[in-house]
Amino acid sequence: MTNAIRVCLVGAGRAGQVHAESLVQHVPEGKLVALVDPNSAALEKSAGRFGVESKFNSLDEAIDRVAFDAVVITTPTFTHRELAALAATRGKHIFCEKPMALTIEECDEMIATAELNKVLLQLGFMRRFDPDFQAAAARIEAGEIGQPMMIKSLTHGPGLPPAWARDLQTSNGMLAEVNSHDWDAVRWLAGSNPERVYAEVSNFKGQKHGVDTPHFYDTALVSVRFESGALGAISGICPCDYGYDARVEIVGEKGLLQIGDVRGQSVVVCTDRERGLVTPIYRSWPERFGSAYVREMKHFLGCIRNGSQPSVSGLDGRWAVAGVLAATRSFREERSVRIAEVLDAVAAVGERNR
Amino acid sequence: MTNAIRVCLVGAGRAGQVHAESLVQHVPEGKLVALVDPNSAALEKSAGRFGVESKFNSLDEAIDRVAFDAVVITTPTFTHRELAALAATRGKHIFCEKPMALTIEECDEMIATAELNKVLLQLGFMRRFDPDFQAAAARIEAGEIGQPMMIKSLTHGPGLPPAWARDLQTSNGMLAEVNSHDWDAVRWLAGSNPERVYAEVSNFKGQKHGVDTPHFYDTALVSVRFESGALGAISGICPCDYGYDARVEIVGEKGLLQIGDVRGQSVVVCTDRERGLVTPIYRSWPERFGSAYVREMKHFLGCIRNGSQPSVSGLDGRWAVAGVLAATRSFREERSVRIAEVLDAVAAVGERNR
Amino acid sequence: MTNAIRVCLVGAGRAGQVHAESLVQHVPEGKLVALVDPNSAALEKSAGRFGVESKFNSLDEAIDRVAFDAVVITTPTFTHRELAALAATRGKHIFCEKPMALTIEECDEMIATAELNKVLLQLGFMRRFDPDFQAAAARIEAGEIGQPMMIKSLTHGPGLPPAWARDLQTSNGMLAEVNSHDWDAVRWLAGSNPERVYAEVSNFKGQKHGVDTPHFYDTALVSVRFESGALGAISGICPCDYGYDARVEIVGEKGLLQIGDVRGQSVVVCTDRERGLVTPIYRSWPERFGSAYVREMKHFLGCIRNGSQPSVSGLDGRWAVAGVLAATRSFREERSVRIAEVLDAVAAVGERNR
Amino acid sequence: MTNAIRVCLVGAGRAGQVHAESLVQHVPEGKLVALVDPNSAALEKSAGRFGVESKFNSLDEAIDRVAFDAVVITTPTFTHRELAALAATRGKHIFCEKPMALTIEECDEMIATAELNKVLLQLGFMRRFDPDFQAAAARIEAGEIGQPMMIKSLTHGPGLPPAWARDLQTSNGMLAEVNSHDWDAVRWLAGSNPERVYAEVSNFKGQKHGVDTPHFYDTALVSVRFESGALGAISGICPCDYGYDARVEIVGEKGLLQIGDVRGQSVVVCTDRERGLVTPIYRSWPERFGSAYVREMKHFLGCIRNGSQPSVSGLDGRWAVAGVLAATRSFREERSVRIAEVLDAVAAVGERNR
Repeated sequence: MTNAIRVCLVGAGRAGQVHAESLVQHVPEGKLVALVDPNSAALEKSAGRFGVESKFNSLDEAIDRVAFDAVVITTPTFTHRELAALAATRGKHIFCEKPMALTIEECDEMIATAELNKVLLQLGFMRRFDPDFQAAAARIEAGEIGQPMMIKSLTHGPGLPPAWARDLQTSNGMLAEVNSHDWDAVRWLAGSNPERVYAEVSNFKGQKHGVDTPHFYDTALVSVRFESGALGAISGICPCDYGYDARVEIVGEKGLLQIGDVRGQSVVVCTDRERGLVTPIYRSWPERFGSAYVREMKHFLGCIRNGSQPSVSGLDGRWAVAGVLAATRSFREERSVRIAEVLDAVAAVGERNR
Repeated sequence: MTNAIRVCLVGAGRAGQVHAESLVQHVPEGKLVALVDPNSAALEKSAGRFGVESKFNSLDEAIDRVAFDAVVITTPTFTHRELAALAATRGKHIFCEKPMALTIEECDEMIATAELNKVLLQLGFMRRFDPDFQAAAARIEAGEIGQPMMIKSLTHGPGLPPAWARDLQTSNGMLAEVNSHDWDAVRWLAGSNPERVYAEVSNFKGQKHGVDTPHFYDTALVSVRFESGALGAISGICPCDYGYDARVEIVGEKGLLQIGDVRGQSVVVCTDRERGLVTPIYRSWPERFGSAYVREMKHFLGCIRNGSQPSVSGLDGRWAVAGVLAATRSFREERSVRIAEVLDAVAAVGERNR
Repeated sequence: MTNAIRVCLVGAGRAGQVHAESLVQHVPEGKLVALVDPNSAALEKSAGRFGVESKFNSLDEAIDRVAFDAVVITTPTFTHRELAALAATRGKHIFCEKPMALTIEECDEMIATAELNKVLLQLGFMRRFDPDFQAAAARIEAGEIGQPMMIKSLTHGPGLPPAWARDLQTSNGMLAEVNSHDWDAVRWLAGSNPERVYAEVSNFKGQKHGVDTPHFYDTALVSVRFESGALGAISGICPCDYGYDARVEIVGEKGLLQIGDVRGQSVVVCTDRERGLVTPIYRSWPERFGSAYVREMKHFLGCIRNGSQPSVSGLDGRWAVAGVLAATRSFREERSVRIAEVLDAVAAVGERNR
Repeated sequence: MTNAIRVCLVGAGRAGQVHAESLVQHVPEGKLVALVDPNSAALEKSAGRFGVESKFNSLDEAIDRVAFDAVVITTPTFTHRELAALAATRGKHIFCEKPMALTIEECDEMIATAELNKVLLQLGFMRRFDPDFQAAAARIEAGEIGQPMMIKSLTHGPGLPPAWARDLQTSNGMLAEVNSHDWDAVRWLAGSNPERVYAEVSNFKGQKHGVDTPHFYDTALVSVRFESGALGAISGICPCDYGYDARVEIVGEKGLLQIGDVRGQSVVVCTDRERGLVTPIYRSWPERFGSAYVREMKHFLGCIRNGSQPSVSGLDGRWAVAGVLAATRSFREERSVRIAEVLDAVAAVGERNR
């Protein structure tokens, strides 16, 4: 396209590569014009793979040297606030991967800065762009299954997350890294905000993997009560080893709705009568949600072009962070925690700071 | 039950054992009072397993020595006519396993003898008593998918049939032994008689198994045109090794209907991300149709008690035999064959014999 | 069978009818010789349907007037203790429907009385006899998915339970009436006892149905921590209206295992392109677990005949009751509750009573 | 992309629009620079929708007025030969929709002209680029299910084809228009060429739709014998009304392999206990094979860029045409027809023409 929107991608890790591939292979309306990563080796490798000539170790540099319209932030959580602030003040639209940030205060600051500088801020909840999830949401919205009573969402990921992603200090742990999507999905699909959570966590595989991160857990189950009275369950397992598994099940007053399938391909094979039928499972999140990543990027670029607001906003990111913080407090203090405890603390601080 | 119907089972092979187990374990309204098999070793073994004291090498003997109401015939096809004739003339109701007989003449004789002696004759098409098949038939009958346009039925069996069962002289081969059920099912579900068939057969595994039976085939595909204009396909593979597989798919003017599932159990396991989900397949026909065998026996005994006609009659058995004979002629003569060719020949002979 | 075990069925309600049908139609090794129900109309109706001549309004009477070997108790929960005591002291083996009783004390008394009188006591956890559940349990036991980390079990029932079954005073409510099976299944399959529970409940449909039972809820979600560190979720919805739904999903250290299917039949129909494929759902628990009810009865009668202990004992029933009591306390006091709180209270009372 | 490959699309019908959308929305490496259709209204509409400024009523004109590298031909079958000849002689690479042409002679001419002019010729068998089909083909190729013994492929399309597409004179009818993909798939997956076919056809819905095309049929079943001895079935129904349905099932010496699913989405809903579970079906071929259309276009453009040969060639298109012609002769002459009859006739003509 002649007037494609110019994008600078910050973060050459796995999520960064997924977005880079979208932009280069599947999204003619965008153009990947610069790549940023503090790790020069990773930067070179990605730049080579995607044919990007402009590559930098910091966003600062990139902004100074290359013209672009938007940033896509795919770096670790603890860097999001600063990168977003920089992008916003330099007038770049922001696409930010989940989790949005480490604290409610950081989320609030990101939202405020984007608004102040009149740039768009879209959160990377790609399930909102998956055709199955979208169809389901539309049917719930249309009242097909009635008022949601119970909603369960699970995400089980195959491999051990990197060190920063399992440390409560740098990422809020698996409930944030893996289950951010579930936090967003249950709130979206239940059509109600969470009110109270109770979380249990366990550590089954840490020792085997030599993990010594404090408070590490690989198995988590969160019970959620929504303002509407609906009950919810979020479960996370990582590493689960067996595949990538993301499914939602909702019961409304009128009936049941299931989203997603543990099967990853429509090929079934049987060559052993004693073993039985075998069908592939999704092996990774890019495999499961590949087209959703493309679609969310098309949405973001479309909003920039049309001047419309993204359907997934900073506030959605903030709610997910609130859920994670309340659930983390719950398992650490062995009690149920109201979301308001997390949000009120921020409000109180805000009050004091006035 | 105090006045259970007394049954003599003829044939201590696999099908015989399935019926014996039904009678002993699951059908209180019947009582297995005698067992007949020319093979004394098999006879002893079955008699011991099912706790039957009266055991004989011939039906003749059994009739002379034990009082009973009905026979269940599960011997090789080429013996059916004689056993049925004997049972009928001695006033015993007859349950006869498929295939009914080797020729249309034999079928006609069996039907006539049963009628003459006023005994019931039920054919062992147990799929008619499977809950899935019954529900499907009722829905087709009710017009839910409209007039059937295309119907496909397959039966793939895991193991090599015994020598007599693959020899055209003693059994009419796999199209009879394995696919009799399909012949019955397509006619039942299409609601129309077959008019013309075309068959192709292949022999892939015979050599590996050391089979030297003439005209042996392990793979067969029959194209069927019904009087209604509907088209049908029957496929048989035996040995298929991978499991026991029996499914039907019908397209009517209004829609699609599928019967059966290749999955044999509602248990799914995934322990290998590269391999994927594994779910058991049916390993054998008793596993797939176990409850249907029980239900067909209950139906037979119920008909005896109530004096009503079985829903699966000698005529149904005769149609299946006609299909098998026409298809066999088709692949041997490499041309399509009208069912009437097979039936008219009998009629002509009947004519001459008057 | 000449020497069938004689059974007296107490309770002519729905569960009673399911067991009566098993005994009369599918279990030749048992004989239904007497029927007991205080409601004469229900008694007459069931007696007629199943052809039972000896019918009484109390178990007392039945014991005095008819000879039998065992009782099958299918009356409301609050009557179990007394009926079991009577049966035990008169030397009758006991098959008792779930929930076992209202309190741990009642459970303990039932277990002690049965032991004292040397009669068998089997609890009606029929899922233990369902082929899918059995196969899954065997595979977990064999280590196929490794140590269980997360186990989720749900039971959603279509209709509003009767008044006594939703009242905490007479039944402990839905968590007992509907979810007893889940309590047993998660403990059985996780291979570990529950340690701590947290429950949330909601009432969505009560008002619509005119229910004024105090503490009524139709939606419940229980988070369970097991002694092994495994996490569990039990969910119950009743009435859910959409069908009968009972499924379990387990993730072990090595992989995933799913039991059960929301589909109730292997028939798929599509007659509307806009609507899509339609397949029946299980409409009721007898439809889903019909064969498991037959198999548990065969097991019970087999144990009586062989003098062996049933595989599902009073202790299993007691654990389910303990879970229900802890979860009920949890949602009423809005906090997590250790199972020990419930069991220790009994122990303390026992201590005092010495 | 700066140096995208320039494409001229010939045919503004439905298939044309699918390819246009691929090029504009999903394939940055190509650029749709011109549109051709003799129907000016359709041309204007498509040009507007896809933002194409250069639009013409004939390919001739387009070639004279616009610079481009390749043509995508999506016009009716009977026009393919002439358009391909024109493109080839003017040095344009050719992507040609199926069916390739009406006769073997036409196919041969297209292949020869492309070779002579050193342009690429790719056939539009997009199933070769569907991830499910590709994975299945790779597994068969790797020997996972052993030597194919039986292969069944079906395509049922929802709506009545346009007049030219059901007329044997202009399209060879449904076996060509709808089942071309099956002809290609069975040969590809069986790894063997067809040797002999037998076809039955029926007309169920023609009268209702007011179709008076001679030899019209809406239901076809073709039995195929492959050179390897494998047996095959191809079935076509159009209009089937219930959805778009394309599935393949193969049994090899070692086992079963199924490709595709009648379910079109991973969303399941149940709101009616009597009706059951409902899941969407594929409603159209672009919905089922959308990503395969994108991928085949990427392959074509990649071949142009790299100078490599497309994996789906004119010879593949020719084999599909041969199957269609033999099957058509089969149902018209009511006999099985060897593929050689069709091919030899061409050879003989070629011989005479020397």
